[in-house]
Amino acid sequence: MTTVSAYAATSATEPLTKTTITRRDVGPHDVAFDIHFAGICHSDIHTVKAEWGQPNYPVVPGHEIAGVVTEVGSEVTKYKVGDHVGVGCFVDSCRECDNCKEGLQQYCTGTGMVGTYNAVGRDGEPTQGGYSGAIVVDENYVLRIPDSIPLDKAAPLLCAGITLFSPLRHWEAGPGKSVAIIGLGGLGHMGVKLAKAMGAHVTVLSQSLKKMEDGLRLGADEYYATSDNDTFKALRGKFDLILNTVSANLDLGAYLGLLKRDGTLVELGMPERPMEVPPFPLAGMRRSLSGSMIGGIPETQEMLDFCAEHDVTPDIEVVQPEYVNEAYERVLASDVRYRFVIDTSTLR
Amino acid sequence: MTTVSAYAATSATEPLTKTTITRRDVGPHDVAFDIHFAGICHSDIHTVKAEWGQPNYPVVPGHEIAGVVTEVGSEVTKYKVGDHVGVGCFVDSCRECDNCKEGLQQYCTGTGMVGTYNAVGRDGEPTQGGYSGAIVVDENYVLRIPDSIPLDKAAPLLCAGITLFSPLRHWEAGPGKSVAIIGLGGLGHMGVKLAKAMGAHVTVLSQSLKKMEDGLRLGADEYYATSDNDTFKALRGKFDLILNTVSANLDLGAYLGLLKRDGTLVELGMPERPMEVPPFPLAGMRRSLSGSMIGGIPETQEMLDFCAEHDVTPDIEVVQPEYVNEAYERVLASDVRYRFVIDTSTLR
Repeated sequence: MTTVSAYAATSATEPLTKTTITRRDVGPHDVAFDIHFAGICHSDIHTVKAEWGQPNYPVVPGHEIAGVVTEVGSEVTKYKVGDHVGVGCFVDSCRECDNCKEGLQQYCTGTGMVGTYNAVGRDGEPTQGGYSGAIVVDENYVLRIPDSIPLDKAAPLLCAGITLFSPLRHWEAGPGKSVAIIGLGGLGHMGVKLAKAMGAHVTVLSQSLKKMEDGLRLGADEYYATSDNDTFKALRGKFDLILNTVSANLDLGAYLGLLKRDGTLVELGMPERPMEVPPFPLAGMRRSLSGSMIGGIPETQEMLDFCAEHDVTPDIEVVQPEYVNEAYERVLASDVRYRFVIDTSTLR
Repeated sequence: MTTVSAYAATSATEPLTKTTITRRDVGPHDVAFDIHFAGICHSDIHTVKAEWGQPNYPVVPGHEIAGVVTEVGSEVTKYKVGDHVGVGCFVDSCRECDNCKEGLQQYCTGTGMVGTYNAVGRDGEPTQGGYSGAIVVDENYVLRIPDSIPLDKAAPLLCAGITLFSPLRHWEAGPGKSVAIIGLGGLGHMGVKLAKAMGAHVTVLSQSLKKMEDGLRLGADEYYATSDNDTFKALRGKFDLILNTVSANLDLGAYLGLLKRDGTLVELGMPERPMEVPPFPLAGMRRSLSGSMIGGIPETQEMLDFCAEHDVTPDIEVVQPEYVNEAYERVLASDVRYRFVIDTSTLR
């Protein structure tokens, strides 16, 4: 076991504080790596504030992790010391169910995917995330970060990136397809960049026009304010695919009306209350309301390679670990363009 | 113009009464036919009781219409006198939008489909439905009823039949697919028969086991009571496709949990209140909640031909026109196995 510094939450109400945690010895199939950067995801905040159930404190959050390999187990074939690697939202899964076998580990029906933090690993120990100096993960749950992507910009791809990439691929965004992204935050801004890189026509649906200039710079073809009712008349029946990155409960009937026949609205932000869905906008044009959750290991690797090829990276603000609590406040106030990334060098 | 007898609603609260209505002269593209049988659909009741908005009284309901051609217009090529024909839920549409051109007239984005009753036809006159002695309809909105299907059993195929056939086809029910039908009523019993004929594994999800024997006779492989909570444990993640024929608001989160990864629950019964949909059962397995509405003319013809080939017909109870108000009461009490069909011979 090795000891590293980390930032941990000890209760739902206290700020995160600096502490030390242990990482397991490197097993035959393990990869150990120094964490260089860790993104801050809204899920981190939901978890530590116990908004998604009571977590097992202390919790070291962070599931957008990028770093450099320092040691590999005797049986490891995929990685070597010095490689740039990353870890996303999970560090293991049952490996035996149909979904795991298909490489869709995020939908594991066996044990369920093992979260990168606030879960229990195969060794029976609590998992702890990326707001720390180093981590040890089975090689099958480690991603290769292409050399052309700086590590700080690679980190948010591991959750925000794949969360958008996977539904864009699954529902076949591309040339000739009209895609709308609801919300221009950490997730939404990646949606704009990825959908554009795939060749789709991209529209941002944001509450106001405040970030319009930014949205167009990021690659959006069109930008509409949803506070303006005319938006819902002007865009009626326009989209093949709408990705909703907003976790507030929206008037889904109005948004479903913006889909073409057979179009799909995919929920990515997780509203706390059930969504209210009127039946006629679905049945009247055979539309669908769907959901999607991150991506499996093969698709996450595909996403990283796609981002390298198409020069797609997030817009980030790099902060020091001791800034994490202030960063959380700013995430909650939507005051970040568009992702905080913690420089973890002082934690190693 | 010709005059025929009919049963009409004159208000939301009065019983339907016998009256006379006129049918337009046969135009060059029109088919006139004697109505032999007309099914009673729950939509008829919703409409006359003003539950779907204020209708334009008097309303002659009936959109499951089967009969025999008596006259064709000078330009008609598809039908001749003596042919067995039918009309379903619409008698016209814009004919110019993409959906109409694709033969998906039920999703017409021009004028919208022109309902068989309680709508306004191309001639500016109110449309009146099948609880009557005869009707005149453009040949492009008339279906051919195969000779092997008796006219009384053909009638309910025009709405109940196609409402189930279309989503079963669209979501690819067939061998190797596991399909559940929620509710064993007029729609549900057609779903069981059609899904079985397509080769799917069919499960009925009914409130109780009261109709279990019937359900198995109709072709279901399995039958479960949804009042039993164990059902939701036993069937978790089992289905590729669930068709919901029940219009009451269900606990959709529980039903979505019965779908496999990438499975779809299709709403066919139209609940009056918005549906409450929790986000996790959708996102957690990339499931979809969708809707579907009857079918277009080509697919309705395909359905009739399929039913002839596979000997699929509804279970019906034939009644006389003067029984219609009592039949409505029994439909509301779910006291019909499984569709009332009015013998309209006394209205001709």
